[in-house]
Amino acid sequence: MAQPVSGFSRLSTEEKINWISQTFFDDAASAAALIRKYRNSDEALQQLHDEFIENTVTNYYLPLGIAPNFLINGRYYAVPMAIEESSVVAAAAKAAKFWAERGGFTATILGTEKIGHVHFLYRGEKETLEHYFARVKPKLLEATAALTRNMEKRGGGITDIRLVDKTSEMPCYYQLHATFQTKDSMGANFINSCLEAFARTLIAEAPTFGISGDALEIVMSILSNYVPNCVVRAEVSCPVEELAEKNIPDPERFAQRFVDAVRIAEIESYRAVTHNKGIMNGLDAVVIATGNDFRAVEAGVHAFASRDGQYRSLSHAAIENGIFRFWMDVPLALGTVGGLTSLHPLVKLCLEMLGKPSAEELMKIAAVTGLAQNFAALRSLTTTGIQEGHMKMHLNNIINQFKASKSEREQIRAHFADKTVSHAGVADYLATLRQ
Amino acid sequence: MAQPVSGFSRLSTEEKINWISQTFFDDAASAAALIRKYRNSDEALQQLHDEFIENTVTNYYLPLGIAPNFLINGRYYAVPMAIEESSVVAAAAKAAKFWAERGGFTATILGTEKIGHVHFLYRGEKETLEHYFARVKPKLLEATAALTRNMEKRGGGITDIRLVDKTSEMPCYYQLHATFQTKDSMGANFINSCLEAFARTLIAEAPTFGISGDALEIVMSILSNYVPNCVVRAEVSCPVEELAEKNIPDPERFAQRFVDAVRIAEIESYRAVTHNKGIMNGLDAVVIATGNDFRAVEAGVHAFASRDGQYRSLSHAAIENGIFRFWMDVPLALGTVGGLTSLHPLVKLCLEMLGKPSAEELMKIAAVTGLAQNFAALRSLTTTGIQEGHMKMHLNNIINQFKASKSEREQIRAHFADKTVSHAGVADYLATLRQ
Repeated sequence: MAQPVSGFSRLSTEEKINWISQTFFDDAASAAALIRKYRNSDEALQQLHDEFIENTVTNYYLPLGIAPNFLINGRYYAVPMAIEESSVVAAAAKAAKFWAERGGFTATILGTEKIGHVHFLYRGEKETLEHYFARVKPKLLEATAALTRNMEKRGGGITDIRLVDKTSEMPCYYQLHATFQTKDSMGANFINSCLEAFARTLIAEAPTFGISGDALEIVMSILSNYVPNCVVRAEVSCPVEELAEKNIPDPERFAQRFVDAVRIAEIESYRAVTHNKGIMNGLDAVVIATGNDFRAVEAGVHAFASRDGQYRSLSHAAIENGIFRFWMDVPLALGTVGGLTSLHPLVKLCLEMLGKPSAEELMKIAAVTGLAQNFAALRSLTTTGIQEGHMKMHLNNIINQFKASKSEREQIRAHFADKTVSHAGVADYLATLRQ
Repeated sequence: MAQPVSGFSRLSTEEKINWISQTFFDDAASAAALIRKYRNSDEALQQLHDEFIENTVTNYYLPLGIAPNFLINGRYYAVPMAIEESSVVAAAAKAAKFWAERGGFTATILGTEKIGHVHFLYRGEKETLEHYFARVKPKLLEATAALTRNMEKRGGGITDIRLVDKTSEMPCYYQLHATFQTKDSMGANFINSCLEAFARTLIAEAPTFGISGDALEIVMSILSNYVPNCVVRAEVSCPVEELAEKNIPDPERFAQRFVDAVRIAEIESYRAVTHNKGIMNGLDAVVIATGNDFRAVEAGVHAFASRDGQYRSLSHAAIENGIFRFWMDVPLALGTVGGLTSLHPLVKLCLEMLGKPSAEELMKIAAVTGLAQNFAALRSLTTTGIQEGHMKMHLNNIINQFKASKSEREQIRAHFADKTVSHAGVADYLATLRQ
């Protein structure tokens, strides 16, 4: 059994690889060779990637695929998508093409406000605290002058600080609720640095205003990934009859069933979760390819989906006066400067491919890709079912796994054209072929 | 401006790279060279990765780091983590070591039920439908016999099918609510194939039981990523005084502030979102490294966090009779067979490194990594603040970006040891150094 290891982080990468290989693998040499195979032969490039995080041993590959023909606000984009799941890029590309032929996607920014809090406990009269807050507020802003100087040059900064009484929910609990504009940066470091400066100042100035050091206690200072006022709307629409194409012979029936499917996701949480997961298939793939933090986006998006007390669909659909409309509002705090965007060479490349977008433009592109994905998934689900296309991909993956020859591949595909694909079924059939 | 492209998916990889480079980049040759630089020189390996999705042009690198010394249910693990965010692996490793010295983590499976639905519309008497369902249920199971044969051999299968009346929420809307056990597979393909078979049978058998074809309409058949009965509990505990270490001089104060911080995340959604995002930093990194689908996990986890009508912390903390306890229940539908787990060589390696875990064991490891991450984040937040460590990492990243020499690096680190790190500040200081 493995034993604890001491000083692992101080080992060189090569030593880390050797320790892992020798500790966890029967065939240590093969394990080490495989880990090394995924490292880049360009040492400077590999070192760059190694230093993004700690204890790096190699590069985990996510396929980077391209979904072309996204027409958004009148401009064509080829969208880079980093994702391991089959069918997603194909579906996005198919939906992009479908809508490009019907006027394309429209996307609108509804807000770009970021939010952070100093969470603190205060034991004393509320009026005293309110009075103190009014007096100390200018000093809170002064304390962040060095931090905000550059952000203000770019048109951003701190937009407000409010004192919020949360004592009805937890004894002595108050917040400084601060709002920010961070322009093309996601802003996490800027916001957290500002908040920590607020907290230091709030404590340091208290005695001057007659509040004892014991009465105020900072619990933590941190941005929120819940950004209900940093929202982009993505939408498509066209006359119902224009939905017709080869595989949509009856556009009215298609539109109605599509609207029913969205309605189900609006009212039924079990379905909403998977529905929104499909949106995130597209959205996250763009978030990752452009060096943004998908955990932050996911948490904010799903909390937004539950904001009225029930977890619901992010997207909506309607037929009104013969017009089919499909849209969603989604909270997205993204950056196109700072963080990985300027460090990861492929991220820089993906951003250049998108025309070096501003954060607002990237919000639009990501949201549209999510909506396109949702359209494609609902289209499959409400017509052929999702398994037909999925099973075709699945079959290919199983074939690869068995290292089937070209002739075997063709026979397997023909055999399973009208059958349910299963791993065991392919194994059985391949065994008969190979007898 | 870019124009639409036709037949992109049918281009060879090399042709795709050329089209992208020539269409979107001023320096097409450099762009193409960079894309190629990220491709693996082993052609067969690269082809394998290319075929995971569609329109693949190269590999997006996520750093794969190792967090050693996770003691879970008495066994040591070194946990592979695929993540781009700095500090996360270091924090996980630190929390793992801290708790290994205090008895380690405990993890328990609370359930492994998966769920899927046939969503359909029915226009007729409810009693007729109920009667029909009772009669057709055996046929639904018969229709999936070929699909369930192998799953049943492994101890899984369909556990129940219920008819659910949702007409109070949407006219004519009913569900078949089916539950599954899928053992070590995540089960998406199995469940979706079963559901589509149910749907076909439900329609095909209707006339035999006196229900006209027009009365029943399938909207869609699909698994749910909301899995509130597929849950793992991860926890740690120790006497409060044993929390003491070099940086925790006053364990009682530390424990109380930690509990306050968790309480805030339990009652305040703005904080809960970021709190849970921190959990997912650790959890997703394991999910990705082991070839599972993080969008499915994210959607299910965050919906679970909002299940009582308000979005809340997933984790909880308490001090009782001098014992500090920190725990979380989290829904996780993971697989260790099927999908990418048997296809992606690094995924296979990561699973072998974890001792070829069952799906239940992997649920435990992923949940524990999430809890460890949350512990580390709360520890930083409630003591030094999160920016101190973060800014150290951030400074390293900025230094890399400016390609600073070794001597410049040392001078920059010394200069910023007691200053707030900003991109502009480092740029200014480096400019003075280089004058």
